[in-house]
Amino acid sequence: VADYSIGVDLGGTNLRAAAVTREGKILEQVSVSTDVKLGREKVINDLVSAVDQVRRDQHTRPTGIGVGVPGFIDMDRGVITGAANMPGFEDFSVRDDLSTRLGVPIVLENDANAAALGEKWMGAGRGVDDLVLLTLGTGVGGGIIHRGEVLHGFLGMAGELGHVTVVPNGYPCGCGNRGCLEKHASATAVESMANLMGLGEDLSAKHVFDLASQGNARARQVFESMGTSLGTALAAFINIFNFPLYLLAGGVVEAWNLFAPAMLAEIEQRSFTYRVSKTSVEKAALGKDAGLYGAAYLPFLKHTR
Amino acid sequence: VADYSIGVDLGGTNLRAAAVTREGKILEQVSVSTDVKLGREKVINDLVSAVDQVRRDQHTRPTGIGVGVPGFIDMDRGVITGAANMPGFEDFSVRDDLSTRLGVPIVLENDANAAALGEKWMGAGRGVDDLVLLTLGTGVGGGIIHRGEVLHGFLGMAGELGHVTVVPNGYPCGCGNRGCLEKHASATAVESMANLMGLGEDLSAKHVFDLASQGNARARQVFESMGTSLGTALAAFINIFNFPLYLLAGGVVEAWNLFAPAMLAEIEQRSFTYRVSKTSVEKAALGKDAGLYGAAYLPFLKHTR
Repeated sequence: VADYSIGVDLGGTNLRAAAVTREGKILEQVSVSTDVKLGREKVINDLVSAVDQVRRDQHTRPTGIGVGVPGFIDMDRGVITGAANMPGFEDFSVRDDLSTRLGVPIVLENDANAAALGEKWMGAGRGVDDLVLLTLGTGVGGGIIHRGEVLHGFLGMAGELGHVTVVPNGYPCGCGNRGCLEKHASATAVESMANLMGLGEDLSAKHVFDLASQGNARARQVFESMGTSLGTALAAFINIFNFPLYLLAGGVVEAWNLFAPAMLAEIEQRSFTYRVSKTSVEKAALGKDAGLYGAAYLPFLKHTR
Repeated sequence: VADYSIGVDLGGTNLRAAAVTREGKILEQVSVSTDVKLGREKVINDLVSAVDQVRRDQHTRPTGIGVGVPGFIDMDRGVITGAANMPGFEDFSVRDDLSTRLGVPIVLENDANAAALGEKWMGAGRGVDDLVLLTLGTGVGGGIIHRGEVLHGFLGMAGELGHVTVVPNGYPCGCGNRGCLEKHASATAVESMANLMGLGEDLSAKHVFDLASQGNARARQVFESMGTSLGTALAAFINIFNFPLYLLAGGVVEAWNLFAPAMLAEIEQRSFTYRVSKTSVEKAALGKDAGLYGAAYLPFLKHTR
């Protein structure tokens, strides 16, 4: 009889669930489209039926269920805070409600943190206890793993690495700041910079990547600029944490060869810790599965408060 | 019979030792001038005799001895690394040597980390388990306390907060970077900025403070610039950690009223976490005693690896 847990990754338009053994083997998984904007009842029903589906063929109860969600988590109360895009969830006791409906302990986690935990458990961070993961997408998400667990901060808001300033007078950000990392090093930033470089108005990051790969000098410059900004932020993280591993995830990471040289040069200049210690900056390994693995790992952790 | 430990704070020109109870009461303390540049034998003899002096009148053996030193610590090996100003110490097994000589377990710690721990134990951080301390002196030292213990990183180099970039093209730093926090917000930075502002070539930070207090506009600008740089760095730390408390120590903090408004305005703009969460940025409480208390606290901690 397998000792297993269930991980749930709740995205904006997609919900995935998997039954995973303590060794990280996926026993069963399911993916359903959902729309968090349709409200709490619908989303929770979808979640409950996805969980029922993945545990239907198991002969025992899961150790617990971990749920990764796009919002901040008040770990003590088991509540999602700052979930602007999830109507009905704000200040609703999701954890206790799900636990009652499913008859199993529930652990909530922020999706970026869950992805970092997933990489630590089954991905590129398997060999270490301390790492930082940056997910470069529409924005830049961050997750910090210290001693094998998520660093939460006192309101579950730690790891907002996309809003660290890299250019003091840089692009304005919706958060109220200027020059946030995510305005200079995300898929959206690549598109905006391509636009500013006169490459076109509606270019996708993928398109800019293709142009750069074909040798377009301005498109290459976009990725170099992204690399420099990433390097500035990573140098700070390395000086702050002295962790052995920093991982980059998200679609834009396919452009690694275009931005990594500028990124590594910037880190080299801005962090003597990097120069004297064996610090790795690498691609993450699990892609979209990172959050699912991380969610499934949560019930196996000792203190997941 | 009191349960006590001994803390030692080894500075560049001064060595202090104190016997301290588990409740933080100082039973005995001594301060001797020493010069780490005179070499290991001399310094270690001074340290041993200071320890003997503070434990002479105690009727039991101390739980352990904590030693704060100006260098990086390889916690596993009990060795000081990167101790450029301490001839003879590099790669010498200080911990084991002292432990043999003194007959008590020894715990080494970096001095900035020890100060942060001291503030957590008996100072301004008594009410929290997570805090960041910045010590503004010749440079800027940093210490990070997470779950009541020092965050070390894998080579004991975490907390190099003085070398976080705050001005990408700012003043050059001996570490190889430009625009390090410590080049823009330390006693030395205040003096250099005063010089650049034409206030005089050999002004001490204290003198610049006096000028600013008397209403000198350029001297006031120096402290505002320092406040802005501090705010940029603190906003990043708040976004990264979401800790409840950030402390500032060091002589320049006397100029709080001159730099704090610019600092807090910058944090307010650059960190939405700060705006939505009850985050305190305050003066540290223990002054020069922070490192001594922190060193004494080390033997009482559970895992001081």
